[in-house]
Amino acid sequence: MTSNDTIIAPATPFGYSGIAVIRISGPSAFSYLSTLSGKKTFKNREATVSSITDNNSTLIDRCLVTAFYGPRSYTGDDLVEVSTHGNPAIVDELVRAFCHLGARPAGAGEFTQRAFLNGKMDLIQVEAVASLIHSKSIENSRCQHKILTGSLSIIINDIRKKLISLLSQFEYQMDLSEEETHGDYGSNLLSELTSILVTTNEFEKSFYLGRLLNRGASVVIAGTPNVGKSSLLNYLSGSSRAIVSDVPGTTRDTIEVELVIGGVPVLFVDTAGIRESEDLIEKEGVSRAKERANSADLIISLTDNPQSEHLHYNKTPALKVVNKLDLRQSKKTEDGVIHISVKRGLGFSFLNEKISLALGINKISTDETYLSTARQHRAMVDCSFFVKKALTLTKQKTLDLELLSFEVRAALTSVDEILGKTTSEDILNNVFGSLCVGK
Amino acid sequence: MTSNDTIIAPATPFGYSGIAVIRISGPSAFSYLSTLSGKKTFKNREATVSSITDNNSTLIDRCLVTAFYGPRSYTGDDLVEVSTHGNPAIVDELVRAFCHLGARPAGAGEFTQRAFLNGKMDLIQVEAVASLIHSKSIENSRCQHKILTGSLSIIINDIRKKLISLLSQFEYQMDLSEEETHGDYGSNLLSELTSILVTTNEFEKSFYLGRLLNRGASVVIAGTPNVGKSSLLNYLSGSSRAIVSDVPGTTRDTIEVELVIGGVPVLFVDTAGIRESEDLIEKEGVSRAKERANSADLIISLTDNPQSEHLHYNKTPALKVVNKLDLRQSKKTEDGVIHISVKRGLGFSFLNEKISLALGINKISTDETYLSTARQHRAMVDCSFFVKKALTLTKQKTLDLELLSFEVRAALTSVDEILGKTTSEDILNNVFGSLCVGK
Repeated sequence: MTSNDTIIAPATPFGYSGIAVIRISGPSAFSYLSTLSGKKTFKNREATVSSITDNNSTLIDRCLVTAFYGPRSYTGDDLVEVSTHGNPAIVDELVRAFCHLGARPAGAGEFTQRAFLNGKMDLIQVEAVASLIHSKSIENSRCQHKILTGSLSIIINDIRKKLISLLSQFEYQMDLSEEETHGDYGSNLLSELTSILVTTNEFEKSFYLGRLLNRGASVVIAGTPNVGKSSLLNYLSGSSRAIVSDVPGTTRDTIEVELVIGGVPVLFVDTAGIRESEDLIEKEGVSRAKERANSADLIISLTDNPQSEHLHYNKTPALKVVNKLDLRQSKKTEDGVIHISVKRGLGFSFLNEKISLALGINKISTDETYLSTARQHRAMVDCSFFVKKALTLTKQKTLDLELLSFEVRAALTSVDEILGKTTSEDILNNVFGSLCVGK
Repeated sequence: MTSNDTIIAPATPFGYSGIAVIRISGPSAFSYLSTLSGKKTFKNREATVSSITDNNSTLIDRCLVTAFYGPRSYTGDDLVEVSTHGNPAIVDELVRAFCHLGARPAGAGEFTQRAFLNGKMDLIQVEAVASLIHSKSIENSRCQHKILTGSLSIIINDIRKKLISLLSQFEYQMDLSEEETHGDYGSNLLSELTSILVTTNEFEKSFYLGRLLNRGASVVIAGTPNVGKSSLLNYLSGSSRAIVSDVPGTTRDTIEVELVIGGVPVLFVDTAGIRESEDLIEKEGVSRAKERANSADLIISLTDNPQSEHLHYNKTPALKVVNKLDLRQSKKTEDGVIHISVKRGLGFSFLNEKISLALGINKISTDETYLSTARQHRAMVDCSFFVKKALTLTKQKTLDLELLSFEVRAALTSVDEILGKTTSEDILNNVFGSLCVGK
């Protein structure tokens, strides 16, 4: 399949750098390049230096251009990569010049969408591209790379094949007379459905770890004012990110620092100290602090004294942490309380271990393949649901093959959705939208 | 000249994007790539897909790699560009793998430094690369491009040739007898030195506009509390960058927004309202506000009432601006006062025009070549100084050719410094340091 218009977008981040790369893909990619560079032909995959001008023949930049002939390109269509000086003003001007000729600014993920439409990858692999790009750790990159090269697609396709085989067996069985249909067939069916369910259940559960690797977790540092919340954040981040002072109520906005723990990006959030206040801005800060604590994966409930009560939070699990260990002689208090001194840097390896345990980070292995997007998980839950229904039908005295066929077909639809074979426009847009512009 | 070690650096900005590019340059660039990709040879300038692994043969990413054979590469040495998924964790891991084999992380501008050492560009052109990358407008990019392709180097080399020709004339004259030395020669010398001085003076002066284009200007919005300084900043930036409220003293930190006016990046700075305050944090804000106002290129002195006095500032020129025009019937006040309404968006085109006039932006033409770095300017000032001294000597009754020769030689040294021919290590480091890592 070939696309019928030509898209363009920068493929490197906005910023000032050595080089920036712009991608152009579609039927007119090469002809637009010819117009703006004055060169007639481009050898496949050969990087050549070219002056690129705007449509008034004013030079924009001397660029390195490489033409990739379809279908052996990323998108499957003709594709050009233009490497310019890494300057946003130049990038803008180049994009403008191509658009003036008829190119269209690409939407997020549109290059990958063309690769998908041209049959170069399935939807799981598209999501792996997005996850690979947004990955915050090399551990997650490795997991996503495995998925991109097919580790998850193979498993899902295997489930798909099994479901299709069941469906064709049903067809066959329905053609047989009643006497030929029972006995072994039922128990055989039971074991095949159970085996599928084991796999889908396992992958359903794996999503928690996949999401942890891929999306990370948030840890809110909460407590009454002046117990050292901002100092703890600064210590964890190794910088003076948050302003600290002896004045209670110094922090108003929530301040965030992301650290990678065991391959998992953990967002630590410093919040306003929780107390009654007349100050309008502080009040807003306290309300935001409570909101963040409720939506976090874990709370570090900080006090500065073993005798202080820890604040109570909704349902979010909390680690009880007591700061200012340096000011105390004994550290005897109730069980499960973690003692630290931000000032002296004491107790941090124990705290890290407890955070890792509380979030489940210790269970992650990069040798495993996990579901890693909510979309995959939702479709997998659906698949399990229908397989379970089919299993219940199988256990009944007489096999209702029509009903069974209906449930297995529904399970198959869910699997096809994971692969992007029967996925709705909305969901497709959502998946491609999670990619960067230029990918 | 060939470098004796191999350097590596990312050439695209840190961030999550379609692709990231890493550059490796030096004698082992190709052999390291072979080791990590398993491929023996690379065709010159051909982009090929390769799996790159770490030193334990674990896949890092499938990359697009292009080998550029020296001396026809950017650096003049063998150079590799590796295009990966645009993810910082992957980029880090790739750099680590090459460094493990012996590559060294490149310093800022080290690729361009190699191009300079290999005679591929002079120091003016190196600076143009840096300016081109950091350029905030297409107007400046165009000016810098002209410099990169030699517009300024040609002029400087022309001055250089004239000075060398003078020096060789001196040698010749010194060999002549006294009778042959006077008369026409003196007046001829006068006109040649004057012609050089006209050029150097012109370029000296051009630096103001070059710096304006290249570095931009800063405009501080200052005034007493609650006259609408943050609202003005938000209006100019078209966003809610600064928190605004009716509470005087809402802004404590200085908040900055950059806008491009006529090709010039203008940094608008919102500051704390200037008043006496007991609040420690606000006090610090007020002191910072005064500091910024003193170092700015222009102050927008804002009041909310034509009767209010404008605060006085050191030597920084100030535009008197009165906000809240919407609340008043008449706008009659003293001359030179600009009336605006941030709330209604009134008076902004006039304000912009006045800002452009006050900063000199209206004098810029992209057809001209300007000096654009302080280093070039300093050396040009030196050159003028010595040419002026030579001129004074020429006007004396008897020509002291030894002294003249000394001054002209000093002028030549300054010109050579501009081109980077005799530039000290410190200054060279400074110039290359102004480039990005990876360029």
